[in-house]
Amino acid sequence: MNGAESLIRALLDEGVECCFANPGTSEMHMVQGIDAVPGMRAILGLFEGVCTGAADGYARMAGKPATTLLHLGAGLGNGIANLHNARRAGTPLVNLIGDHAIHHVPYDAPLTADIEGVAAPVSAWTRTSRTAEGVARDARDAVRAAMAPNPVPLGNISTLIVPADCAWGPTHYRSGETRATAARPAVPEAAIETVAVLLNADCMLLLDGEALGEAGVRQVGRLVAASGAQALSSTFPARVDTGPGLCEIGRMPYFTEQAREAMERTRHLILVGAEAPVSFFAYVGEESSLVPDGCEVVRLAHRHEDVLGALEALADAVGAPAEGDAVSGERPNLPDGELSMRSFCTVFAALAPEHCIVSGDSGPGAAAYPALQAAVRHTWLNLTGGAIGQGGPAATGAAVACPDRQVFALLGDGGAAYTIQYLWTQARENLDVVTVIFANRSYGILDIEYRRLGINEVGATAASLFDLSNPDIDWVQLAGSLGVPGAHARTSEELTAALTRGIAEPGPFLIEVPLGR
Amino acid sequence: MNGAESLIRALLDEGVECCFANPGTSEMHMVQGIDAVPGMRAILGLFEGVCTGAADGYARMAGKPATTLLHLGAGLGNGIANLHNARRAGTPLVNLIGDHAIHHVPYDAPLTADIEGVAAPVSAWTRTSRTAEGVARDARDAVRAAMAPNPVPLGNISTLIVPADCAWGPTHYRSGETRATAARPAVPEAAIETVAVLLNADCMLLLDGEALGEAGVRQVGRLVAASGAQALSSTFPARVDTGPGLCEIGRMPYFTEQAREAMERTRHLILVGAEAPVSFFAYVGEESSLVPDGCEVVRLAHRHEDVLGALEALADAVGAPAEGDAVSGERPNLPDGELSMRSFCTVFAALAPEHCIVSGDSGPGAAAYPALQAAVRHTWLNLTGGAIGQGGPAATGAAVACPDRQVFALLGDGGAAYTIQYLWTQARENLDVVTVIFANRSYGILDIEYRRLGINEVGATAASLFDLSNPDIDWVQLAGSLGVPGAHARTSEELTAALTRGIAEPGPFLIEVPLGR
Repeated sequence: MNGAESLIRALLDEGVECCFANPGTSEMHMVQGIDAVPGMRAILGLFEGVCTGAADGYARMAGKPATTLLHLGAGLGNGIANLHNARRAGTPLVNLIGDHAIHHVPYDAPLTADIEGVAAPVSAWTRTSRTAEGVARDARDAVRAAMAPNPVPLGNISTLIVPADCAWGPTHYRSGETRATAARPAVPEAAIETVAVLLNADCMLLLDGEALGEAGVRQVGRLVAASGAQALSSTFPARVDTGPGLCEIGRMPYFTEQAREAMERTRHLILVGAEAPVSFFAYVGEESSLVPDGCEVVRLAHRHEDVLGALEALADAVGAPAEGDAVSGERPNLPDGELSMRSFCTVFAALAPEHCIVSGDSGPGAAAYPALQAAVRHTWLNLTGGAIGQGGPAATGAAVACPDRQVFALLGDGGAAYTIQYLWTQARENLDVVTVIFANRSYGILDIEYRRLGINEVGATAASLFDLSNPDIDWVQLAGSLGVPGAHARTSEELTAALTRGIAEPGPFLIEVPLGR
Repeated sequence: MNGAESLIRALLDEGVECCFANPGTSEMHMVQGIDAVPGMRAILGLFEGVCTGAADGYARMAGKPATTLLHLGAGLGNGIANLHNARRAGTPLVNLIGDHAIHHVPYDAPLTADIEGVAAPVSAWTRTSRTAEGVARDARDAVRAAMAPNPVPLGNISTLIVPADCAWGPTHYRSGETRATAARPAVPEAAIETVAVLLNADCMLLLDGEALGEAGVRQVGRLVAASGAQALSSTFPARVDTGPGLCEIGRMPYFTEQAREAMERTRHLILVGAEAPVSFFAYVGEESSLVPDGCEVVRLAHRHEDVLGALEALADAVGAPAEGDAVSGERPNLPDGELSMRSFCTVFAALAPEHCIVSGDSGPGAAAYPALQAAVRHTWLNLTGGAIGQGGPAATGAAVACPDRQVFALLGDGGAAYTIQYLWTQARENLDVVTVIFANRSYGILDIEYRRLGINEVGATAASLFDLSNPDIDWVQLAGSLGVPGAHARTSEELTAALTRGIAEPGPFLIEVPLGR
């Protein structure tokens, strides 16, 4: 057995069984290892950002890491933007990166690069294997590090760099060791007691992490029923499970003035796996913190702690009812006529299947969140790190993790363009993902932000840098070229027909709508 | 005036007048600066790898840097692969990266990242501005660093990170200071004398950098005429100017056994701006160095030295004739019938216009190099760092730098998929680039390398990771969706018709050929 095979066996023993791959020559023995050992599903992406984004989406749904398999420093580089997003999400993820054989590195062949340096800004754990015998242990350590309860800024990305000679060199492997489990530290009782005393209708529970999984949201519903407190998620949480039968979860607004307004009557902001809200960007003369004067910030639990246990203990401490607040749930009627953001949201809420998954990295997509929450149980995956081009790849990974659930990707045209190669992977793997492209032919957010920065005169150059027309991208044609059928929808009826078809047909589908702002 | 405007003025004063941009909110004041100051051409890319690859191609042709304008660490991350290639090429390039306002960084907003950390592995010079008053000086320093004579592994990429408050803060700017010039250090006379004594038909001149520009190639022709020495370029030089009237420049083969064979009768390998050849990847039991036993390596000039001056001094020292060896040049006849790599090369050599530019990042593309060299004067741009997905963006930048020259991009389908968004920029800017996609529906090189690594049994998983069919990408349809017309060419006649049309029509064009291996 060579190092590569021991690596794959160790990963499987740790429960890692999916690899989003774009390998090159230096990763060929790892490819051979995947071939030789049954159980590791390998999925090809045509661009590394697709692989890293898919691994993020997969782990958010599967609750355990996938690996990527990428080619040296340049391949890892192409994956950095979605690794940034995954780091922010706290997603467990293991990058496998090949390197030249150790003796070959000093020769500085063209692909030689400082791979550890490329990995560092996004990785909580980075190691370069030194021997074939050590590769299996390195792989176990990588998975365990990815599953460790790390505080927020660190994230949970492990990057294991495997020189070719460590992959091809001989070794042994002994299976059957105990699989690592990640025990989250308990929240101090004092924190629970403190919050129990002050919890009332002037409080806001700001939720993230485990608080937004189904079990967490149930406990939040109990707390809302008992106290009348507001329950909001962070602006961009990694995953939210909501809908009828579960407590309504609002969302901290993105724009600073709206966020401040949301907290206007909040006396205590209670952080439940979340961080205190800050401005996404800095603006001249504005404060970075969005917490209003007179609002006290109280921490119930950090995201890496036992958030769920803390919520349950708190609900019991305040004598909350067993069954909490819940959305009653009703499907809206299908609208007709002109397509608008409002009618889009209505059609979407009317047709989205029960237990669907929505992956969004755009403002227009986020607009559908309240309507969907009122209509159907679902899981919503957000863009956590602000690097657009994540929604399509994340939807791809989510569909791999959950083959029985319909997945939607709600994407802006600007964001979709970064990683559009994900469509090909969806076609190849026949994944049930319906992509909606909001084709407003612009980086709409930049036009807004430009004015918010106090620049009211948009000159010709600035306008050209916000503009995605000239030429207009035909997203349906683009999808077709990559093996994904699609349709344009310009009216509510056309959207209804297209969405119905996309949901009914197996495999991926794309709908282009002329919406955005 | 704010910092951003002073930045743009400083760049223009240093001769930088082209910006390949994919900005976000944190770069809006720099966008405003470009708008406010006439002279900086801003070109939008839909993906940052397009911007960095285009800046590389631009600088290789213009001989001076362009800037990129990218969004924080994630945006820079997306540009890393082509920055790796540009670093290997020694291309002067200035990245402008926005950052949060300095006071905002500690709040760890979602897009906060270690930008200097992302920049480090590809940059020879990295700085984060600290004040608005300092931005103009930082910009000048960045350009000067990019133009400095740096040794090979360092490269010539400068990354200037501009926090938003440094861009929006007030400052003054005084124009008219002296523009920096990069003086390359002279080659020691002893090196020239040493080579002059031993130069004969048993020598190989291994060329890179300035030796491969038109003036360098003329001096090489003199040396070949005087000595009968072989003249080869490195395997992947950044730029070669050759064709009829200039000395024939062979190319050091990529595959190790062919490279060793090429040097079989070489007694002295003379490095002229090049490095001694090493294996691209490591193979079990093979040496990294490709220089055969009994072949002595002698350095005439490092790439960052005055290579041209050294060549001229050497030619004079050996009494070389004023007019050296030169290719006579003849256009081949147009073939008909079945399309093969051979007939492709013939059609291409028959039709490519005088002084065209070819950008290639694929094996099949490289096959056309000898035929073109025999037929027409041209400039050939290579993939220097092995990170595929560079040819299309580099062609885009070359076309911006040289609007009067026909540009070709000869791309493998695997490589083209990484950065296919470049087509949209070509359509928007109406650039005269004909892309040829060699659609062999596979990562052909991996299939070859797999077997070279001694793995002769290709299992189902490995096969699936090399395979680009299922689904087949329709490259003509894909180009059409991005605003670029195109044609399939399945016979020599169809290729002749498509190439003739692509060359004749203004703006970009794409031809898909079912070739590769």
